[in-house]
Amino acid sequence: MEPKTTVGFIGLGIMGGPMAANLVRAGFDVAGYNRSGAAVDRLVAAGGRAGDSVVDVVKDADVVITMLPDTPDVEAVAGTIIDAGHPGLLYIDMSTIQPQAARAVAAAAGDKGIRVLDAPVSGGEQGAIDGALSIMVGGDAEDVERAGPVLAALGTTIVHVGPAGAGQTVKAANQLVVAGTIELVAEAIVLLEATGVDAAAGLRVLAGGLAGNRILDRKAHTMLAREFAPGFRVDLHHKDLGIGLAVARDAGVVVPLGAVVAQLMAAVRARGDGSLDHTALLRLVELLSGRSGDRS
Amino acid sequence: MEPKTTVGFIGLGIMGGPMAANLVRAGFDVAGYNRSGAAVDRLVAAGGRAGDSVVDVVKDADVVITMLPDTPDVEAVAGTIIDAGHPGLLYIDMSTIQPQAARAVAAAAGDKGIRVLDAPVSGGEQGAIDGALSIMVGGDAEDVERAGPVLAALGTTIVHVGPAGAGQTVKAANQLVVAGTIELVAEAIVLLEATGVDAAAGLRVLAGGLAGNRILDRKAHTMLAREFAPGFRVDLHHKDLGIGLAVARDAGVVVPLGAVVAQLMAAVRARGDGSLDHTALLRLVELLSGRSGDRS
Amino acid sequence: MEPKTTVGFIGLGIMGGPMAANLVRAGFDVAGYNRSGAAVDRLVAAGGRAGDSVVDVVKDADVVITMLPDTPDVEAVAGTIIDAGHPGLLYIDMSTIQPQAARAVAAAAGDKGIRVLDAPVSGGEQGAIDGALSIMVGGDAEDVERAGPVLAALGTTIVHVGPAGAGQTVKAANQLVVAGTIELVAEAIVLLEATGVDAAAGLRVLAGGLAGNRILDRKAHTMLAREFAPGFRVDLHHKDLGIGLAVARDAGVVVPLGAVVAQLMAAVRARGDGSLDHTALLRLVELLSGRSGDRS
Amino acid sequence: MEPKTTVGFIGLGIMGGPMAANLVRAGFDVAGYNRSGAAVDRLVAAGGRAGDSVVDVVKDADVVITMLPDTPDVEAVAGTIIDAGHPGLLYIDMSTIQPQAARAVAAAAGDKGIRVLDAPVSGGEQGAIDGALSIMVGGDAEDVERAGPVLAALGTTIVHVGPAGAGQTVKAANQLVVAGTIELVAEAIVLLEATGVDAAAGLRVLAGGLAGNRILDRKAHTMLAREFAPGFRVDLHHKDLGIGLAVARDAGVVVPLGAVVAQLMAAVRARGDGSLDHTALLRLVELLSGRSGDRS
Repeated sequence: MEPKTTVGFIGLGIMGGPMAANLVRAGFDVAGYNRSGAAVDRLVAAGGRAGDSVVDVVKDADVVITMLPDTPDVEAVAGTIIDAGHPGLLYIDMSTIQPQAARAVAAAAGDKGIRVLDAPVSGGEQGAIDGALSIMVGGDAEDVERAGPVLAALGTTIVHVGPAGAGQTVKAANQLVVAGTIELVAEAIVLLEATGVDAAAGLRVLAGGLAGNRILDRKAHTMLAREFAPGFRVDLHHKDLGIGLAVARDAGVVVPLGAVVAQLMAAVRARGDGSLDHTALLRLVELLSGRSGDRS
Repeated sequence: MEPKTTVGFIGLGIMGGPMAANLVRAGFDVAGYNRSGAAVDRLVAAGGRAGDSVVDVVKDADVVITMLPDTPDVEAVAGTIIDAGHPGLLYIDMSTIQPQAARAVAAAAGDKGIRVLDAPVSGGEQGAIDGALSIMVGGDAEDVERAGPVLAALGTTIVHVGPAGAGQTVKAANQLVVAGTIELVAEAIVLLEATGVDAAAGLRVLAGGLAGNRILDRKAHTMLAREFAPGFRVDLHHKDLGIGLAVARDAGVVVPLGAVVAQLMAAVRARGDGSLDHTALLRLVELLSGRSGDRS
Repeated sequence: MEPKTTVGFIGLGIMGGPMAANLVRAGFDVAGYNRSGAAVDRLVAAGGRAGDSVVDVVKDADVVITMLPDTPDVEAVAGTIIDAGHPGLLYIDMSTIQPQAARAVAAAAGDKGIRVLDAPVSGGEQGAIDGALSIMVGGDAEDVERAGPVLAALGTTIVHVGPAGAGQTVKAANQLVVAGTIELVAEAIVLLEATGVDAAAGLRVLAGGLAGNRILDRKAHTMLAREFAPGFRVDLHHKDLGIGLAVARDAGVVVPLGAVVAQLMAAVRARGDGSLDHTALLRLVELLSGRSGDRS
Repeated sequence: MEPKTTVGFIGLGIMGGPMAANLVRAGFDVAGYNRSGAAVDRLVAAGGRAGDSVVDVVKDADVVITMLPDTPDVEAVAGTIIDAGHPGLLYIDMSTIQPQAARAVAAAAGDKGIRVLDAPVSGGEQGAIDGALSIMVGGDAEDVERAGPVLAALGTTIVHVGPAGAGQTVKAANQLVVAGTIELVAEAIVLLEATGVDAAAGLRVLAGGLAGNRILDRKAHTMLAREFAPGFRVDLHHKDLGIGLAVARDAGVVVPLGAVVAQLMAAVRARGDGSLDHTALLRLVELLSGRSGDRS
């Protein structure tokens, strides 16, 4: 697959917009579609083409990418993509959705000779802008190879993790670990602050040893400062934890920490902090510990 | 404080033995005491001196260090150290004990003009051998400064985190985060394996993103291989989690994940795996998920 | 509504079979349908009529009752019932299903002039046989009143708890409380036994005070004897807890104990005890506590 | 043992006051001691005698009873009782304390020929007033028999549950089950209210089936009305849960629900609701679910 390979890109939001622009920059012929026209205009300004509909961007594409908020959004367009796509089309869904939905799309598409990969990402808006996403890919090896040039324009870590749905499963596991890690750090921060310890100094020690993690590296500063501008929103992480628990349940895997942190994330959301950064779990630990006079 | 500063070292076990040897190597005059004589012989072979009793190694020391298994062990010798030590003695307890016990020792010693630091470590046996421990220090700033040369011979990261007891509090928080992180990784591993994902590949993606942590970096390989030779034993981590929960309770801090992982670590121990590495939490997740054919 | 009111009864299993027989006994004209014919034969022997299909038992019925295992089973027949039923038909679903599915059925039926109640039950097989079920009913008050004679033949406690779906929501809450209570009793039993207490005597004290509950009244004896013949199966309770957590999640309600007990019930099932009585949670607490030599 | 058996009663608070009065009423010669004199005056008004000190009420007593808030309170007087009591004295501690402290008191007293029972109670202030407490007794059978007439004046359910400490262990288990049950009911209430169900009607159904429990019977009304006047205070229940978790930890028993509800009770207390009734767990579930605009 080489330029001028034609890529249809559906979903030009916070993540999809810069991803599509990176494909243009890498030499692909990109036709984009989005429900709101402003996002399409931005793609055109970046050198892409405007599509009028899902069918419009799919019918002549070699590769179609979707980058949509949730499982129902993907289910709503997948049928159209399968109907409108020519045999041999490679359809890469990069949204974070339920693995079983990903498998169902792949099965339905296979009947029509359309190849499907599930390829959710981590790395956030900045990773999308920088073309530095981590991409976890589920599907057949030859399709992953074929997708290589496209994915290389979007991310720096591209790992084939298993058959259809496997990418989504890894993403689900990723989101469980991330949420749990934030909560562990939040509990540590409140514990240190409540006992008169220099919390910043304490977290530096933790970061340097076996307790070290990426949340301490990247988020300790904003957590200590109680800055919760997203970043990755509680609402989205809440959705992702729902997927993770459903995957575990379906697989008969018991995840006690995952289940508890999902409840805590649900509480953050229920209390009205859904649009804050997911590190707002810290606010909940403070609240539970009676240490947030002004915040409840 | 410079060589030939005399250091009395009490507790020459897996950690204390190599730590005392590193002090000899750094030029200190080290007199060691241990309940079992073999450990003292090893210190002498490394260039240290043998002490016959706690009093014997304390009475002429400029600095005394204890490195003992648990709170009662420290409480059993602290009185003797305070009685036998001359005014101006600097007593550094590097064991992992309850913060309130550390504060009590400091208060009792202060009445006699003996200075005390609590300075627990992380980094394990290898860190002790390499002189590469992380050391979290509680106490007065001038005493931390005075301890500098001694601690520099033992560790690479030395952080003053607050007043008496603060070192122990940071260690308690550290152990809660470490246990929680192991459990999160264990849940992810079983989830990936149960769903037909290439777990090693999946963990690589996690390690590269916001889910990344030191357990993934250092322990994923042995966890995937089900190798549970310690390392850091479940029994000790169980003890440390007991301290962590007590600290949280005393401080009125609510730690839901900490409380759940403490139950899980207790289960690993209750099932007879207390002498395995703490990553044996993975065995419990497998057991709960019905995925351990041979099962204990 | 009076005899000879005609009742179509779909689902003549462990619960539905004796319920249909009770309706015959109360004077109703009962036409039954079940996938396996043997159950229909038993109804005929009890004085009912055999139906050949869902349509067959619905088309002339004044009232239709379904008593089926799970949400998809109800969804699979509801459309047929709505299509085949005459306007004015009263359709009472007594299965335990998702509240939102119950609401969807009610809405679809309403468009055709068919009245729907969700009326799940508690009380188990014995309650079904004795006509002594507790019935929690969601729907419109006039429909509940109209259903009165039918429900009175099946249960002794019949409570209208709210609009469509409310019966299922109460059932979901009921199942969360039951599972949690079993687990609390299981933890108490293992705690008493492990500490050398006379557990039977201890449970008698608990049963007599504020800790008293129906599990202690009815199940303590079999739990102490480790008799786990169902009763109510783990597999079904696991299903119900899935509904309960989904209801809570949809409503933004945080249920920490519910979430943990759902994980524990999932573990019992994952370990192969799905066909045991739900009190087999006790086996899991023993396993976690290293007190089940032969069982792990 | 018959009247005029002399009973020394130490601790004439909310529970101890009416208990001592019941002993007077039953014909015992009761000498009472309390730190605050007003309580002693009330006992005298009820027909008892005033003691000036612990020694004063112990030295001539056939039976001594303590009813004190916590373990350290009992430890503070037990030595004096053992020193001042004559051989053959029966010392019944009815406080709720740590089982191991109870065992230590029994061992120390045994060396002096003083017999000890641990006999904590449930039933609350009203049970104390009515002489209708449940009493769980640990100790030797002959001592329990000897205590019979005294205990019969205080409670209606008196059960010998095992050797020294067993009474306290059963009480600890009791308090874990009570707290868990309150939390389960609280989660159910918020779930019902949040989904538009008639919660009072829903709870009636729960109370009538396998979900039925004493909290639903006695506390549902005040919980629905958000009346949290104690009753049994959060602070005390928090203390008791600390004992329960310590007992489980010492015994190697894993109590996941117990551990989580202890965190929740700690949160209620940390938020300033320690003096409310323990059913204030409901406030926390509301808070976590974003349903308490005015309360945080």
